[in-house]
Amino acid sequence: MPDLVTFGETMLRLSPPRGERLERTRTLDTAIGGAESNVAVAAARLGCEAAWLSKLPSSPLGRRVTGELRSHGVEPAVAWDETDSARLGTYYLEYGGTPRGTDVVYDRRDASVTTATPSELPTATLDDAELFYTSGITPALSPTLADTTEALLAAARRAGTTTAFDLNYRSKLWSPDAAGEAYTSLFPHIDVLVAAERDVNACLNREGDAIEVANALLHEFGFETVILTRGAHGSVAVHDGDAHEQDAYTADTFDPVGSGDAFVGGYLARRLRGGDVADALAYGAATASLKRTIDGDLAVVTPEEVRALIAADGDGGISR
Amino acid sequence: MPDLVTFGETMLRLSPPRGERLERTRTLDTAIGGAESNVAVAAARLGCEAAWLSKLPSSPLGRRVTGELRSHGVEPAVAWDETDSARLGTYYLEYGGTPRGTDVVYDRRDASVTTATPSELPTATLDDAELFYTSGITPALSPTLADTTEALLAAARRAGTTTAFDLNYRSKLWSPDAAGEAYTSLFPHIDVLVAAERDVNACLNREGDAIEVANALLHEFGFETVILTRGAHGSVAVHDGDAHEQDAYTADTFDPVGSGDAFVGGYLARRLRGGDVADALAYGAATASLKRTIDGDLAVVTPEEVRALIAADGDGGISR
Amino acid sequence: MPDLVTFGETMLRLSPPRGERLERTRTLDTAIGGAESNVAVAAARLGCEAAWLSKLPSSPLGRRVTGELRSHGVEPAVAWDETDSARLGTYYLEYGGTPRGTDVVYDRRDASVTTATPSELPTATLDDAELFYTSGITPALSPTLADTTEALLAAARRAGTTTAFDLNYRSKLWSPDAAGEAYTSLFPHIDVLVAAERDVNACLNREGDAIEVANALLHEFGFETVILTRGAHGSVAVHDGDAHEQDAYTADTFDPVGSGDAFVGGYLARRLRGGDVADALAYGAATASLKRTIDGDLAVVTPEEVRALIAADGDGGISR
Amino acid sequence: MPDLVTFGETMLRLSPPRGERLERTRTLDTAIGGAESNVAVAAARLGCEAAWLSKLPSSPLGRRVTGELRSHGVEPAVAWDETDSARLGTYYLEYGGTPRGTDVVYDRRDASVTTATPSELPTATLDDAELFYTSGITPALSPTLADTTEALLAAARRAGTTTAFDLNYRSKLWSPDAAGEAYTSLFPHIDVLVAAERDVNACLNREGDAIEVANALLHEFGFETVILTRGAHGSVAVHDGDAHEQDAYTADTFDPVGSGDAFVGGYLARRLRGGDVADALAYGAATASLKRTIDGDLAVVTPEEVRALIAADGDGGISR
Amino acid sequence: MPDLVTFGETMLRLSPPRGERLERTRTLDTAIGGAESNVAVAAARLGCEAAWLSKLPSSPLGRRVTGELRSHGVEPAVAWDETDSARLGTYYLEYGGTPRGTDVVYDRRDASVTTATPSELPTATLDDAELFYTSGITPALSPTLADTTEALLAAARRAGTTTAFDLNYRSKLWSPDAAGEAYTSLFPHIDVLVAAERDVNACLNREGDAIEVANALLHEFGFETVILTRGAHGSVAVHDGDAHEQDAYTADTFDPVGSGDAFVGGYLARRLRGGDVADALAYGAATASLKRTIDGDLAVVTPEEVRALIAADGDGGISR
Amino acid sequence: MPDLVTFGETMLRLSPPRGERLERTRTLDTAIGGAESNVAVAAARLGCEAAWLSKLPSSPLGRRVTGELRSHGVEPAVAWDETDSARLGTYYLEYGGTPRGTDVVYDRRDASVTTATPSELPTATLDDAELFYTSGITPALSPTLADTTEALLAAARRAGTTTAFDLNYRSKLWSPDAAGEAYTSLFPHIDVLVAAERDVNACLNREGDAIEVANALLHEFGFETVILTRGAHGSVAVHDGDAHEQDAYTADTFDPVGSGDAFVGGYLARRLRGGDVADALAYGAATASLKRTIDGDLAVVTPEEVRALIAADGDGGISR
Repeated sequence: MPDLVTFGETMLRLSPPRGERLERTRTLDTAIGGAESNVAVAAARLGCEAAWLSKLPSSPLGRRVTGELRSHGVEPAVAWDETDSARLGTYYLEYGGTPRGTDVVYDRRDASVTTATPSELPTATLDDAELFYTSGITPALSPTLADTTEALLAAARRAGTTTAFDLNYRSKLWSPDAAGEAYTSLFPHIDVLVAAERDVNACLNREGDAIEVANALLHEFGFETVILTRGAHGSVAVHDGDAHEQDAYTADTFDPVGSGDAFVGGYLARRLRGGDVADALAYGAATASLKRTIDGDLAVVTPEEVRALIAADGDGGISR
Repeated sequence: MPDLVTFGETMLRLSPPRGERLERTRTLDTAIGGAESNVAVAAARLGCEAAWLSKLPSSPLGRRVTGELRSHGVEPAVAWDETDSARLGTYYLEYGGTPRGTDVVYDRRDASVTTATPSELPTATLDDAELFYTSGITPALSPTLADTTEALLAAARRAGTTTAFDLNYRSKLWSPDAAGEAYTSLFPHIDVLVAAERDVNACLNREGDAIEVANALLHEFGFETVILTRGAHGSVAVHDGDAHEQDAYTADTFDPVGSGDAFVGGYLARRLRGGDVADALAYGAATASLKRTIDGDLAVVTPEEVRALIAADGDGGISR
Repeated sequence: MPDLVTFGETMLRLSPPRGERLERTRTLDTAIGGAESNVAVAAARLGCEAAWLSKLPSSPLGRRVTGELRSHGVEPAVAWDETDSARLGTYYLEYGGTPRGTDVVYDRRDASVTTATPSELPTATLDDAELFYTSGITPALSPTLADTTEALLAAARRAGTTTAFDLNYRSKLWSPDAAGEAYTSLFPHIDVLVAAERDVNACLNREGDAIEVANALLHEFGFETVILTRGAHGSVAVHDGDAHEQDAYTADTFDPVGSGDAFVGGYLARRLRGGDVADALAYGAATASLKRTIDGDLAVVTPEEVRALIAADGDGGISR
Repeated sequence: MPDLVTFGETMLRLSPPRGERLERTRTLDTAIGGAESNVAVAAARLGCEAAWLSKLPSSPLGRRVTGELRSHGVEPAVAWDETDSARLGTYYLEYGGTPRGTDVVYDRRDASVTTATPSELPTATLDDAELFYTSGITPALSPTLADTTEALLAAARRAGTTTAFDLNYRSKLWSPDAAGEAYTSLFPHIDVLVAAERDVNACLNREGDAIEVANALLHEFGFETVILTRGAHGSVAVHDGDAHEQDAYTADTFDPVGSGDAFVGGYLARRLRGGDVADALAYGAATASLKRTIDGDLAVVTPEEVRALIAADGDGGISR
Repeated sequence: MPDLVTFGETMLRLSPPRGERLERTRTLDTAIGGAESNVAVAAARLGCEAAWLSKLPSSPLGRRVTGELRSHGVEPAVAWDETDSARLGTYYLEYGGTPRGTDVVYDRRDASVTTATPSELPTATLDDAELFYTSGITPALSPTLADTTEALLAAARRAGTTTAFDLNYRSKLWSPDAAGEAYTSLFPHIDVLVAAERDVNACLNREGDAIEVANALLHEFGFETVILTRGAHGSVAVHDGDAHEQDAYTADTFDPVGSGDAFVGGYLARRLRGGDVADALAYGAATASLKRTIDGDLAVVTPEEVRALIAADGDGGISR
Repeated sequence: MPDLVTFGETMLRLSPPRGERLERTRTLDTAIGGAESNVAVAAARLGCEAAWLSKLPSSPLGRRVTGELRSHGVEPAVAWDETDSARLGTYYLEYGGTPRGTDVVYDRRDASVTTATPSELPTATLDDAELFYTSGITPALSPTLADTTEALLAAARRAGTTTAFDLNYRSKLWSPDAAGEAYTSLFPHIDVLVAAERDVNACLNREGDAIEVANALLHEFGFETVILTRGAHGSVAVHDGDAHEQDAYTADTFDPVGSGDAFVGGYLARRLRGGDVADALAYGAATASLKRTIDGDLAVVTPEEVRALIAADGDGGISR
């Protein structure tokens, strides 16, 4: 009976060492990453019962994903793809640094998950969940997944489960207009909307003061909560007639990838454990900030670290 | 004006450290591998002008392939795939050891090369080549590639270029029967046939004494030369009415992958530089044996090493 | 409702690279190891529901143990030690090679587990288990653990759970006589005895033909099953009036540590899934043999690999 | 006949790679560290005859310590612990970065050194030493060590050897009050007091202008010299009626651990070689700053580097 | 028929890991570096046909150089030194950080290249080249090389090839006065002069406004173009009566070595492909800035990256 | 007052990973090696006071040598070369395996040590030494060193110090005839001769039964002891009218380099500590065998390991 079920793709991430180029690297570090499993890991580590729903190739790489998620306390609910053509999506991540940006090369086409249908997924895990989460990446991966995403959101709603959705626009997957249209068609099934302010601008053509934009979205689509994130500028939330603002915590960024998901995982974990929205925004901000100091997509943090950071704006000194 | 042009797929090879399993490895060593580029590298390092014809994604991974081939003296003749869906085939190689075999997990479906047509390939490189080589892996990769393989073999023959072909049966790509049928349809275009004895048994249903089998194939299909390899048992060749036998050189095997291609590369290099068949078999055997001591698919050897091994059956002592 | 619960210490294992000495190594590879968690991992990977009962420091190192066990499907049932003096046992393993043996340096004194009492352990996990397993290492670690081991064995017996015990004599922990006395006092609580023949000789002073020794032990102490392992010489079992012999599968040994536990895990998994004793001995032998090719204490294998090895005496070739 | 003898614990230091968490790291870098051996290494590298007095397990890890100290020119004077329970203290160091601090997990309980008594230590090395140094960590490790520390300080004083002491408060070892009481009881044996300003505040309850605090301590306890360090704000010293201030040199900090000991080592080395207090403060500051750019606890520097930094405020450019 | 031929020494570069000192490192990363091959690599990667003229030992290390240059598209034109005393110059590079500078330890004495004479070098590659480039390091390496440098510059001029020269003063090779005298004697053969402003100050005793200095040099020595580089302050050029200024692009510097050569390679590539001087300065600045983010001497960049940086002042974000 | 002083060159050793070729390796492992320092390290680790006499560049690489020797208990007695041209000899070692031999590429020309004269060396360390050792490599390195070697041997003899010499023929340094002539000219100064049987054959033209050859040499040149080593066939010694034979201990060879020096170091250590010749041969054989299992030139062993191997012919099992 999980608190939280997330649904989406998890990929194998392959990264050259710092300063090295993908073109000539001799070694690649491996990790796993995917918005929805990143969120599940953050939430599980912060005390929630979290499950992750997906489809994986029945292969060592598929087992890599479930093993690593389990190690962080996430329960995988997986349809295993036994076909010959089963594959795990991969992505190559090359760290940059001004003026060379961090570059992501996706090799995720035709991954097993792109064929996932509601009937084959072990959706029983959803039945008593308190919250269901997916992101705007999932419907972009294939028409089948677009349908499945909508079907799962609708089913969750029918079962009385709260639904949360992060736009997570990816320009390498689709255009802003196509994305905006798809997002909008899913909004009727969504209770909690999370979005980067810049994605709202680009895909939904909303500009202006963040709180006003959030309020407008909340009222137009009937969301329960709308949270807009603004990178280094923190986040705002509107909920139940109130607006909240939360600054980002400064961080020495070692690896920025996954910090947005850490924010969502921290926020949801705190809400699911009874925190109010302001509380949860602080949790999200702290989890995201800690994540930035850690290699890989996953927020390998503890509740104690998140609480200590909120309490003290810890300064990165030596504890001994 | 290359001596040798080879045509086929080259993949990114990803390997966990020895003793580690793909399921949980944190790092992967990268290399490149493909039967036809392996042959070109061995031949180029042994003194031939060698070119490699193929199609690659226009990406860091595609450039990885051309850069590494060039570093060994092979000239890439490449059609660059600029489409969004362009991808480089990859394969995961997990070293085993009795009783756990070395395992290869292919992730090569829909690689750019599978769409290569004769018209888009820079086949001008073929015009004055003395020898054209491809293997039985290439036609197995897609119907398009099966057609392209046949077209290139036929074109080479018409231009007066000698053609060589290694069966290279891969059970993860097709059945023995399907492979046998495809091979047989290509035989009219082929002058020099190389085959593992076990592939001849499995796909062409020929059993019996190796030299008799080789002779029967030579006469039935009108080959100029037939070479059968027998792993640790060496090789036999029939050519111009004569039969030759060559023992394998013993080796402390560090990495067996690519040793068959090293054999072919060594054989062809010696033939192209004027050696007779017996000479060339010895070159092939020595190159293959040295390859076994070297990490990766490629025979990173020198002509001096090959000649010294043939001359002296070098014993692996310390030279200082 | 696990099939199998194991109880014992799991340590952090720290190993220098091959050929390097602990005295001057710059890096250590980390892993986790402990007879009882090794058995649980092998059984879980081979399809059983397995839980591991122990006490750990509430620290990153403690979480390392539970995370890694979970990744293999083992459910940790842990009493967390929140005291300042909480520590995880560690051991340094330096690979050798004739004539320098592999050396183990224990630093496990006063580990949190040595203070574990039945009342603080989450023994509820034991209630419906089919089988309870521990080894002769556990009672050697502290007087408290000796008492706890006996109490848990007795409780399991009372609950109708089958009990299994591997002597696992460690000369760095106690003398053969002290060990023999402790083992014997636990025998009344034990159904299935596993022991290395050399430990039976050294600690129980039984010499002679393995099957005769096994039978004598079975009758003297009223065991349901007695299994004696003989390293490269395989194993024998007596059970229900029958004797069984199983050869060891040959292996290129990369890391021998944990292969005895892999044998036990394979044996128990097969028994718990309905196999007869002969079947289970083959499973144990195959799992142990595969383990030898894998780095670390854990048998990172799949049921398919174990079955394929039994079916075919796989030859370590390349599968591609 | 060493210039300097230091007495204290040296531990094995184990660190995950940057950005990796101790909870899941696969490798640990090893080093050695301990305030008193750090000071001895810095002083030896800067031209002093330095010895280090301690007790170590007779094991590869114990030999690791003496071998590495010797490589920097420090002469180990060691009581070897041959008992079964002999152990070397270890500590895990996880690098952080804002807002996640660098974390130190000690596993040093019951290390061999905690049982060291004056009679078993090879204190002959102290006989002709010019200076004896220990720190406030040592008496915190065990009651035995508290007694031994006092006995050695008293013996040094009796022999006419100057004594130096760095408070080095460690909150993971004891409370500020307990520490303050212990420090104060040792003050009668001490000539040169070094202390971080924040430790003086916390443990001795002295607040205010650094020079005034230093002067007050000097007069109250009769020290010959008092030096207060203030992190990035440099240091002050009072000696022989004069006050001195020294700014810290800016540094790109790669590893801050051990920079305080590098300061002390640099200061003492310069004093022992005839420098005045102002000179020695500059030496200390330069040594500490260079240390910050170097991995590990030890100041692997040369006298030329220290002098060049003082002369030129070196700018970190490329020298070629 | 290359666009660009460069002439000079390429060395093996050996670097300890970051934070580690050469004195005690256990591993060294290898790379190749040399001003003239660095320039050729940058130019080749940006679309020019580039060749590199030099002399190398006939050894694995010599082949390392040609292989790696070829991988970036540079054609090596090499005199192979088959003598027993043949050696490749090496240099050790230890990364620093304020206040410890990056340190370069040369071990390049008596490298094969120091004996290179015009007659043994395969200078045919120069015949139809558009541009010939060498640097002020080359004549500093031996009297023979000083003569050869002058002879090649003169021959290039006679053949109608444009000549370019970068002062590249190295204080570890000679004094400013000796260097200045040697540079001046080569100036009559040079069309395009590149120099760091500080080298012009030190070796040619020119001080003052950069554009005025450049103009004075241009007129005094009859250069076609003079470019002065000023580190973080960008560059100025005078050419054909016009003066140009170009700011440097800011960069997170991972490895500064080779960024000056990247500037020259970028500049020359753009000029050879038809760009005007202002255009080429921007290309140079962008290539240099990207190089700073990349490990090693070589500018492993693409034309797309250079163009994108110029177009957009890319901000180092994540592209996905 | 050392027991043993050795004199010779120590080099930096650079090795690619196993299976990797020097031509393309990205990393090199570093170590130090030299026959005479290898002997000193083995002897020091086995309980002797050992010093090593040589000349080194005053550089990080020179300090690397002294630091590492000190870490094993060897006292360096070094003339520091402060000249600009000072260099440390290096050698590249590429591991092979049948049929590709382990390859050594020397880059040792003009190393500082080649200019060492008796007057600049700190020969005071020789004054009270019991034994002086050098090898036939030293006089091969330069005419200066040939003179210095003879002068030191003669001086040692005059001082009553026993002299020992290992032929250590290196074909990359000189011809067998030149070596033989040089050795013979040194024999009058030598008490203990060690030689590989194959070097005696090649350089001194002695063939036949090993004991007879040894006896003939002993009588012809008036040696006190002659020891002939025969690789896997062990060693023979003649001394004081008696002949002794010692088998080699079998070993899983990880790194053969330095095992001959380990033999000499073990032999001499035992003799210096009072063992008779038979005893010392066993010590030498055991030390050499252990060395073969250890990476690098140095015999990182303990007296306990050597004694245990002699006592028990240890079988490489796991000790735990």
